[in-house]
Parts: sequence; structure tokens; C-alpha cells
Amino acid sequence: MAGSVFGNQFRIMTFGESHGKGLGVTIDGCPAGLPLCEEDIQKFLDRRKPGQSAFTTARNEADAVEILSGVFEGKTTGTPIALLIRNKDQHSKDYSNICDKFRPGHADYGFFKKFGFRDYRGGGRSSGRETAARVAAGAIAIKILASMGIFVHAYAKSIGPVHISEVDLDEATKNPLCMPDAKAAKEAQAFLEECIRQQDSAGGVVECIATGMPAGVGDPVFSKLDANLAQAIMSIGAVKGFEIGDGFLAAASTGSKNNDAFAVEKGKVTTLTNHAGGILGGISNGEDIILRAAFKPTPSISREQRTVGEDGKEIPITIHGRHDPIIVPRAVVVVEAMTAITLVDALLSNMGARLDEVIKFYGREL
Amino acid sequence: MAGSVFGNQFRIMTFGESHGKGLGVTIDGCPAGLPLCEEDIQKFLDRRKPGQSAFTTARNEADAVEILSGVFEGKTTGTPIALLIRNKDQHSKDYSNICDKFRPGHADYGFFKKFGFRDYRGGGRSSGRETAARVAAGAIAIKILASMGIFVHAYAKSIGPVHISEVDLDEATKNPLCMPDAKAAKEAQAFLEECIRQQDSAGGVVECIATGMPAGVGDPVFSKLDANLAQAIMSIGAVKGFEIGDGFLAAASTGSKNNDAFAVEKGKVTTLTNHAGGILGGISNGEDIILRAAFKPTPSISREQRTVGEDGKEIPITIHGRHDPIIVPRAVVVVEAMTAITLVDALLSNMGARLDEVIKFYGREL
Amino acid sequence: MAGSVFGNQFRIMTFGESHGKGLGVTIDGCPAGLPLCEEDIQKFLDRRKPGQSAFTTARNEADAVEILSGVFEGKTTGTPIALLIRNKDQHSKDYSNICDKFRPGHADYGFFKKFGFRDYRGGGRSSGRETAARVAAGAIAIKILASMGIFVHAYAKSIGPVHISEVDLDEATKNPLCMPDAKAAKEAQAFLEECIRQQDSAGGVVECIATGMPAGVGDPVFSKLDANLAQAIMSIGAVKGFEIGDGFLAAASTGSKNNDAFAVEKGKVTTLTNHAGGILGGISNGEDIILRAAFKPTPSISREQRTVGEDGKEIPITIHGRHDPIIVPRAVVVVEAMTAITLVDALLSNMGARLDEVIKFYGREL
Amino acid sequence: MAGSVFGNQFRIMTFGESHGKGLGVTIDGCPAGLPLCEEDIQKFLDRRKPGQSAFTTARNEADAVEILSGVFEGKTTGTPIALLIRNKDQHSKDYSNICDKFRPGHADYGFFKKFGFRDYRGGGRSSGRETAARVAAGAIAIKILASMGIFVHAYAKSIGPVHISEVDLDEATKNPLCMPDAKAAKEAQAFLEECIRQQDSAGGVVECIATGMPAGVGDPVFSKLDANLAQAIMSIGAVKGFEIGDGFLAAASTGSKNNDAFAVEKGKVTTLTNHAGGILGGISNGEDIILRAAFKPTPSISREQRTVGEDGKEIPITIHGRHDPIIVPRAVVVVEAMTAITLVDALLSNMGARLDEVIKFYGREL
Repeated sequence: MAGSVFGNQFRIMTFGESHGKGLGVTIDGCPAGLPLCEEDIQKFLDRRKPGQSAFTTARNEADAVEILSGVFEGKTTGTPIALLIRNKDQHSKDYSNICDKFRPGHADYGFFKKFGFRDYRGGGRSSGRETAARVAAGAIAIKILASMGIFVHAYAKSIGPVHISEVDLDEATKNPLCMPDAKAAKEAQAFLEECIRQQDSAGGVVECIATGMPAGVGDPVFSKLDANLAQAIMSIGAVKGFEIGDGFLAAASTGSKNNDAFAVEKGKVTTLTNHAGGILGGISNGEDIILRAAFKPTPSISREQRTVGEDGKEIPITIHGRHDPIIVPRAVVVVEAMTAITLVDALLSNMGARLDEVIKFYGREL
Repeated sequence: MAGSVFGNQFRIMTFGESHGKGLGVTIDGCPAGLPLCEEDIQKFLDRRKPGQSAFTTARNEADAVEILSGVFEGKTTGTPIALLIRNKDQHSKDYSNICDKFRPGHADYGFFKKFGFRDYRGGGRSSGRETAARVAAGAIAIKILASMGIFVHAYAKSIGPVHISEVDLDEATKNPLCMPDAKAAKEAQAFLEECIRQQDSAGGVVECIATGMPAGVGDPVFSKLDANLAQAIMSIGAVKGFEIGDGFLAAASTGSKNNDAFAVEKGKVTTLTNHAGGILGGISNGEDIILRAAFKPTPSISREQRTVGEDGKEIPITIHGRHDPIIVPRAVVVVEAMTAITLVDALLSNMGARLDEVIKFYGREL
Repeated sequence: MAGSVFGNQFRIMTFGESHGKGLGVTIDGCPAGLPLCEEDIQKFLDRRKPGQSAFTTARNEADAVEILSGVFEGKTTGTPIALLIRNKDQHSKDYSNICDKFRPGHADYGFFKKFGFRDYRGGGRSSGRETAARVAAGAIAIKILASMGIFVHAYAKSIGPVHISEVDLDEATKNPLCMPDAKAAKEAQAFLEECIRQQDSAGGVVECIATGMPAGVGDPVFSKLDANLAQAIMSIGAVKGFEIGDGFLAAASTGSKNNDAFAVEKGKVTTLTNHAGGILGGISNGEDIILRAAFKPTPSISREQRTVGEDGKEIPITIHGRHDPIIVPRAVVVVEAMTAITLVDALLSNMGARLDEVIKFYGREL
Repeated sequence: MAGSVFGNQFRIMTFGESHGKGLGVTIDGCPAGLPLCEEDIQKFLDRRKPGQSAFTTARNEADAVEILSGVFEGKTTGTPIALLIRNKDQHSKDYSNICDKFRPGHADYGFFKKFGFRDYRGGGRSSGRETAARVAAGAIAIKILASMGIFVHAYAKSIGPVHISEVDLDEATKNPLCMPDAKAAKEAQAFLEECIRQQDSAGGVVECIATGMPAGVGDPVFSKLDANLAQAIMSIGAVKGFEIGDGFLAAASTGSKNNDAFAVEKGKVTTLTNHAGGILGGISNGEDIILRAAFKPTPSISREQRTVGEDGKEIPITIHGRHDPIIVPRAVVVVEAMTAITLVDALLSNMGARLDEVIKFYGREL
């Protein structure tokens, strides 16, 4: 299957490899009339950009985005919006020591078995660099949501063994690990520095909250809002787990504790707790949507590892080059992007749910 | 969006409500030539059927399946296979005490906000009964996989606070909780009996293993095999979390421990560990595929709960009727079904990945 | 690919064979709140039903429809609507003389090459009987459109060499050939009687007009309204040509004649002519949508024909059994159905085209 | 709906406007291992390029294509192939006289009603220039087909009142009108010269033949091969009619004449005639696939025409600028492209039709 398309009404298709000419995405189905310029997108790409701290690869990429289509006189026209990010720093690398070996924890072997050969330069399409295209598309989705009063924020909830104790969204924008807890961020930095010394890498958990989502959005039974979010988030490289609301903790709870009682507050239906994470039966209930993604440790480590070559023989491998010791801080904005894309798609798909509203909508014409 | 379709090359569409005339599914894209009779499907439905132990609802449903199309002279023809399961025991219930109130933990409120009204009889389309259609389709997918040497097995990994200590697949078919550990099953039964006494309910975790899956299957970047599995599993009612391989544990590991070293065994590439759960970069690597689903406690409990009515006023609710104190044992076969459907779809989608194989395939014709 | 699904937001999946247990369709994405009962659907099926005149097969089928799901208290709920039409008169036939031969003009050979074997009973899935499921789904689409002031009417424009000279929609419901011109209908009847005497069959053209369609609907560049209509209509068995507006005549016209000048009438933008058939650039322009489908002659004729058997050897074939000498009269309602399904899908898909309207739509919630 | 995606297994998404930065397409699902360079694509774009004769717009565009991704060491990798064609000559135009008026025969009014505003520069997304992206993607599809022995050729069958009398494919590459008949080409040139003098435009019919297509490909009932071809071809701007095989002529034929008798030739099943155009019941039968597209006259003519402005008032319009007096010659390669894309998608989708072949395919792994 052609696996580089996501979404139905708001639909994106990405392309590009780590060491090719560039990365890009086309967004189809973006509503007309959204004010949009390159800077709107660039600020999100800058959050994902490498080289911003000791904990991200030293690769030097401007990640400058160019809008190729779909915008006229500063507004989206409703036609496809193509975005291009050219690679700058992709030529110098020597891959001779890994080009015929399968890196453990990487997609190399799967790509080789599937396609018969592979682009060994920096992982090709399975590089983390692929997510730049997701972020570019996500920036547009985030701007659409903001125009409707819906906001999406993600942060690092844990890094290796270090968990946050508080959520200060402001703080999450200040420290290089995107942790919303200054104390935890310091501990995590110390932990990561030790990882680097050990030629090792770490994982972590990203949490994402969407506020302002109206109730009644989601498409049971297979395109439930949480099912679509799960696909969106699990499709990000290195994600091995997904939770909505209390997630795995709910499995150990009881119905009386886990059920969120409905109540009325200022004339509006709300819930007294939010174990469900804003989605029940696959449909939003108007509460905050809360999800989490578990990121595995960066598979590229500089220690020697056991592996196998394309010739089917065992051989040791040592991976040189620039690699993040942890994926999480740069992945935070990717989780926001994929969440936002999924929400916009669900909102647009939902507009035809009631006949009276469809009739009213087209009544403008009749 | 029309949310009742799943899959691309092997595509299913389900229908039906808990208290309507019945449930069903149409499977489109099933390869021609699979021997298929109703008994092949019935045996899977029987595993999901209510009324089989003290821990499942007393509702009396034969769940007898009828094949309406797509099979001729005992074999699938390649055309759509429609399966119908008529409801038998759906008429007697009195819903007057809940028909205008939103049950906590249920989809009632979301359906009401989305569609403007709702089928209050037993949850309508958001009832667990909807999964019967998934199991019926899954039975066919499981039979296809078996013909290729691929086998899917799920079981209860935990129920409430009780976790298994061993995996004895045979045992999982013997106890009513589908736990592959007789001792844990006994403890879980005692725990559930206490839950029932407390008018409460419990959750749990289902684990599923697929063996024999060839390497090289999955469609990056959005239709990665684990991303599609995540959507498939998260779309099952009451699932709040999904993991592949080590899942959330991977987030606390290090690269050196989490990477699965490649090795050669009997001339075949394999990995020395399987933290990845058989999928790397969204493509199968030939190892066992291992996934987990976290099920929340059954939301329907007989204790009085706080809620709100359709009139927007707070009101207490007491839910009568037949409800499982735990979803997990009956969900085990649903997880197998959704896993199998996803794997078959991926296998069929993958056949055009290499030009040389496409040319060879059609060479039979040329 | 799974080819039995059509539409995106309003999506149908059909199943069933001529001589299996029955035919059916599931409609997913039907807006909630449409009053619907079996009689709403039955009256359209009755128009397609066999045995109604000398020009349709004598097969005796009640074609009684059963609504299996998606309707509660007389209204659609927004969940999938499954419709089942059981076959009654499918058992008696003797197919021994054709079961291993390929009928000329039929899908037999293609099915055999694709699937390795085929359901030879009455054509199986490629029987004209398959269209009953389309008509059932179309009845719902037609009812949705009517609630919005959009009406779809089709009729026979020509039968064999006989063309209509006027369009009297009322007349089209009175004669067995669905021709909107009583004089032409008589001539066509005489022509068909001669065809029957000659053991031969005839073709014809169906024209369909949709009135009341709002301007601004359609999704360039690949899901243009006319492109989707073309797929819908060409997917009906025996259709070999499709036209929108002037169709092939436009190819011989000039720009100055073929362009429809815009004008203002009663404060509304309209066009002075309608060569375009209501669609420009793939988007409706508010004028009547006019399309035509060319139906080939019924391939089943009772004359002996040359053909080949499954063993690859030439052999003569004589097709016995009940066959319409012309497909057109029974196809008229099928064309209406597929047109209506396509229009509803386009209308629902179009609601998110402008950001200001999306914001206003969800403003009800915020 | 997002309407800029076409295909399922071989899936393309296009973007770009006539007067924006450029046009492009991403091809997802292209099998790995196809040798591909920019010249392979350029030669098809050159056939569509403006400024090549007196009968095409004088706009000066190199239409130089850049491959942005998906190719490594001269071969496709199986990942998305992005192609970019930058506009060169898009800046100078003065649109002040049409920017607030709806051009008759154009998509202006529909775009305005759908999106609330429009890109008035040269038609934006509804410009014929959009087809460059189709041709670029089609060049890849054509190369895939050629590797399998399948060849696609289109030519002008008629221009205005001038019809061809013979099909000399070689001749079609020599004259500027792509007519496979030198004498007809001369007459058509004289006719077009008169059109230009009259400040008018002309239409015509393009015919396309695909040879070498294996039998058994196509996905009934909605994704029949001819239904998908119809959508593909009708989605090309200015196409108003589509035929497969005898098309509308079949409607006036009889079964005994229209049925193609099967026969055996050199041990292969074939048909004695090809009225069906290579497709029966939506599945290829191994004969040549023959289709036709009716193109309306270019709507942009320099005569004054009646129209309406965005303010809803009647106003005359005179369209200046560079416009082809006929679309057909440049559309020939677009028809080839869309045909090839549809065939490749169908071939890839078809590989899982038989279980025995699926098992054999994956047997390489087991």
C-alpha cells in the first residue's frame, strides 16, 4: 500500500529522505481562507531543528520551508498546499562502514526485505528527519485549531528514569528537554550526560493535551477519535506505546473509580474527573484530550553491537555520525503536529453527521 | 466520515446495534480459493459469546452466523463475503430509567452531541456486542493466516491487580478468564467475585502474539504495521492503551539494552532478543509480533452514580441489566480478530513492493 | 483491491450474487435524523424488479428489502444502515451447459482469469441482479437529496435506433420502456419485439437530470463531480460510455457556441445555455446536472455463439434461461441511484471547504 | 474532500497552480527497483509543453522536472517520489480585467462559490497547466508498464469536424496535432487557422490504446477497470465524455453483433472482434484496451462574451492572454498518463486476488 498518506478530509502526503534533496508534504483539503505564511510554519520547524542543544545531533540544518502552492494573497485557497524543506548538510557523510550491515533497532533490515535494497544514507526514509514534513503540515493544522479555540500542547513527561512532578507549560519551552518541571529537567540532563559518556541512549514519554475540543467528534467504530490518534502517534518513528487518558493505569482500576461522573458547570455539561482523556466510545466529550507516547531509546549508539550483513553473515557494527542521545525533546513538536492533524481531520469529517445541520448548511444556497 | 470501514486490500465494513435486528460484516478483498463454512466462523463467535461463565453477562445469545455471499461450492470466490448474526434476546429490556440520562464512562453523551439523538437500548452501536462482527471477520483472516503458517494467539495478561507469571497457551483455553496461568486465574476469579459483591467492575490487559509473520511487511510512514495495529486495537471499545514489544517499558530502557542484536540461526536472520515486538520502522522483521491492549473496567456498574440528563440537569443514575463485571475474557478473541485482519491487509498490500516481483507475478500471463 | 466500496463521506459497500442467498448493502455515513422505513426503499426496488413486462426477464423475485440496522424509532441514527434482499427464485436453474464455457460479452472469462474459478450460476457477482443493492442504497440518497430540494430523474433517451423527441417525465413512468415520449416508446416496443423474434438483444442510452444542486460542490482535481459521476455510472454493468452536458457533441462545437454565458435572473447567477451540464472545472455551477450512459445490448442471447471452454478449446454455446432483451428500462432507476449516491457524497464532503464556515459550524459548541 | 489524490496502491497527489511557484506530484507506492532519471520524465513533459506550434499558447515554459525524493543510485526505492516543475513565465500577466468576473466555460464561478474566493491568475488550480503534474506521474507509470510489456498510445481521433481515416502511430508523432493520419491533420490545421481568425476555439476526441494488458485485472463492482479509467479521464480538465470500446455506438448495436466471440489463437484465448475495448464486467480480457475522451473547445476565446461579476451584476468580458485554440494536441499525452496510472494501480491491486498465489508469493519467506 501507499503508506505516505494520512487523513481523509484533511489529508497529507509526505516525501523525502534524510540524505536526499529534501523533505516535503502536500496538504489537501485545508479549508480556504486561513491566513498563512512561511513564518507560521517555520516557527514549528525551528522547534524540531537539530543542533539546538548538547542533546541533539550536531547536524546543521536550517530546515527552511518554502510554500510552493495553495496560498494566494496571504490566504489558503482550498487547493493543495505543498511545502518543501531542502536538505543542506547531507553530502559529507561516509556510510561505507554500515552500508551493507543492518543496524540493530533500525528499520534497515525490514526495508531490505521489503524493497530488495535500501537507501543506507542516514536511514533514508526511516530517518527521524522524516518528521520535519509532519511538523510542517502540523503547523497548519495547529493554526486551524487555534482559529476555533482549540490548543494543543505536548511536553516530556519522563526521560529515562526521571519523571516530572508538575506541569508548567511555560517551563517546558525554556529547558532543552521540553520538560514542564525545572527540577526534573535538571535531573534528566544529568542522566543524559551520563548516557552520552556511556556511549548509550535513553527513551522517554511525551504527553499531549488538547483543550477546547467540542464534544461529539469522532467516527465509530474504526475511525474512533482515539483509534485515529493512536495510528497517528504510533506512526512516528520510535514510538512503542500509546495511551489515552489513564491508559494502562485504567486496566488496574475499578469502574467506580474510573468512570467520570457527568456534572453541570456554568450551564455546561462537564465531567468531575477525566480518566477517559476526553474521549468516550471514540467520540470527544468536550473535556481535555490527553494522550501519551512512549519513545524507545535512540537506536543509533556508538558502542560496538552485534549484527548481520546483507550477505547473511554475522558481523560487528559501530555506528559513527551525529545522533541524538534521546529522541524525546525533538519529538514533542511532532506529537503536537500529528495530534493536530488528526483533530482537524476529525472535525472536518464530522460536519455531515446530522441531516438538520446539512440542510441548514446548504440552506444558504437554496 | 464513514467510520465503519477498516482495511484497504482486505477491507471490512460492520453494522448493527446491541438491540436491533442483528450484527454483521461484509469482507471485501478476501482472496479466492479459501475453504470456508459457517462452522469456521462460529467457533470464534462462540469464544466471544455471552453467558459462558459467572463473569459474563447472562444475556442469552446463540450468535449464530449465516454466510450470505462470497462462498461457492465451499470456497471463497473473491467477491464480498457478507456475514449476518441475528440478535435473539434483545426485546425484553426496560430502558426507561436511562433513556434520557448519560451513563458515566459510556459513549451516550458523545453520540447525543454528534448525532442529535441516540439509540439508548443497550448502548446501540457502542455496545460491546458490536465486536461480534469483528470476530466474524477475524475468523476469516485467521484462517487465511493459518494457510500461510501465521498464527495469532491472545490471552489475559492481567486482570485488575492480578498479573500472570507464565504463559501456558493451553491453560488460557481452559479457564473462563483466558489467563495462561492457572494460579493467576484463580486469584483473578477471587478478585472479580469481590468486585461483583461491591457492585463494581474491573479492567485488565490482553496480550497478543503473532508467530510466523514474514519479514518485510508494513507500509511506512503512516501505515506502519504497528500504527495500523494500534488503530485496529484502539478501535475496540474500552481500550485505553496500546503497546508493541516492550511498549512503555522501552521508554525507561537504554539503547544498548533495548536494541535487538541481529544474529544468524540455522541460516536465517533472527534477533537475540525481541524488545521491538517484531516490528522495526513500521516493517515486520520476522520475529514474533507482540502487542498489548489495556482495557478499562466495564463502565456499566449497578451502584448509583452521578450524571446529567438530556435536559442538561444533574440527576443520579442506576444501571440495571446484564453486564460483564470485566470485559477482558470476552475481548481476547476480539484482539486476535483485529490483529489478524490488520496482518492480512498488510500482507496483501505488500505484494507490489518490488518491481522484479511484480514482473514475475504477471509473467504467468505474458 | 476491495472494489465493492463506493464513496467517502457517504460510503456504501455491496455484496451478493445472482444465485446466492441474497444481495445487500451497508450505507455508512448517512446523516442522522432522516425518517426512513422499508417502504421508502421498496418503491425504488419495485421499479427495478424483474417480471414487469414482456421486455424483462420472467424471473420471479419479490426483491423485498429488510432494514437490519441504523434506524431507531423511524429515523436514521447516523450509524451504518444495512439492507438485505433475499433471493427467492434462485434454485431451479440448470447451468450444466455453460458452467465450463465463457459466455461472449460476459465477465465469465475475466473472473476466471482473476480468481482462478467462478460462480457460473447466473453470472454470480457480475449479474445485473447486483444492481438491486445499488438501488436500495440509492433510495436513501434520493431521500436525503429530496430533503434538500434536489431531485434526480432518469429515463430512456434511446433504445436501439429509436430516439426520443420530447421529454415528458410523467410519460416515462407509464410505459414499460421508461421513455419520456409515448410515440418513441411504441416504436421501441416494436423494435424490441423484432429483436426477441430474432433471438437477439438491444442497447440504449439513459439520460439523467438532477435539479436543485447548489453551486460550489465537487472536489478538483481527481474527485471532480463529473469524474466521480463517471466512475459511478461506468461501474454499472453494461455501460460503455458516459457524457456530461453535451458530451461528445461538445468535441465538434466551438468555444463561442459551447461556452454558457453567465447572466443574472431574479437576483441569482445563472447561465443562458447549459452545454456544460451543470458542472464546470469539476464543480457544480447551480444549473441542472445532465448526464448520459450508453448501455450495450444484453450479452445473453439465445442464438448459438462461438466461444471457448475452461479447457482452452473452442466450443459453441447456447444460453438458455431468462434474460432481458434490453437492459435499459430496468437500468433507469440504477442510474438515478448511482447519481444520487455520488451527489450526497459530494455534498457531505464539501462542508469543510471554507474556514469561516467551519468556525461558524462549531461555534454552536464553543 | 481532499480531491487531489488518485489511486490506491499506486497513489499520486498533485499540487500547484498556473501562476504560483510551480506544479508537482508525489507518487506513493511505486515499486522499488525501477531505473529512473529526470530525462525519463522530461521527454513526456516536453510533449505537453506549450509553445511548440501555432496551435499552442506562446507561454514560454521549460517545464523542467526535478526529482526530489524516492530515487537512489538511479533506481526507485519504493518510497514516495516527489517531482517538482517550477513555473518560469508566470509573473508578467495583467489580470485586472478578469479578476472580478467569471469567465464563461471556466471553473471560476464554481471555485468562487465553493471556496469564497479564487486565484484568478490564469485559472489557478483549474488551469490546463495542472496536467503537467499528471504527465510527470504518468511517465513513471508508463515506464513500469513498458517493463511488463504493456504499451499505451494516444492520438487525436478528431478535431472539430475533421475525423481521421487511418491510424498511423508514427505519423501522430510528426504533425503538431498528434493526428495519426497526415491528410486529416492538414485539414484540421486549416480548420484551426480559420478558428483563430474567427477568435474562436475548437474541441476534439482523443483515443487511447493499451496493448499487452494481461487478462483478469480490475476490481468489480465499483472499481471496475473501465470505471476507474472513466474517473481518471473525466478528471482531466475539459473532458465531457468517455467511451470504452464501441462506447455510444454499442447502444445502437445488437447483442449478436456487439458480443465478441471467444476463440483460440496460437494456444491463447482471444476474441474475434473487440467491441468491448478489452474490458468485460470491469475486468480486462487480454485484448487491447481502447478508450476515448471528448474534449470541449478551449473556453478562453478572445471574443467579447456576456458574463457576471463577483458583485452579481452582468458585465461583458474579453479575455486577453495566451490560450491554445484547441486543447487536444497537448492533451494526448495527458490521456496516456492517466490511463497508465490507472492500469498500474489496477495491476498492483490485483496481486492478492487468489489465495494460492498469495501463499506462493510469501512462500519465498516461509
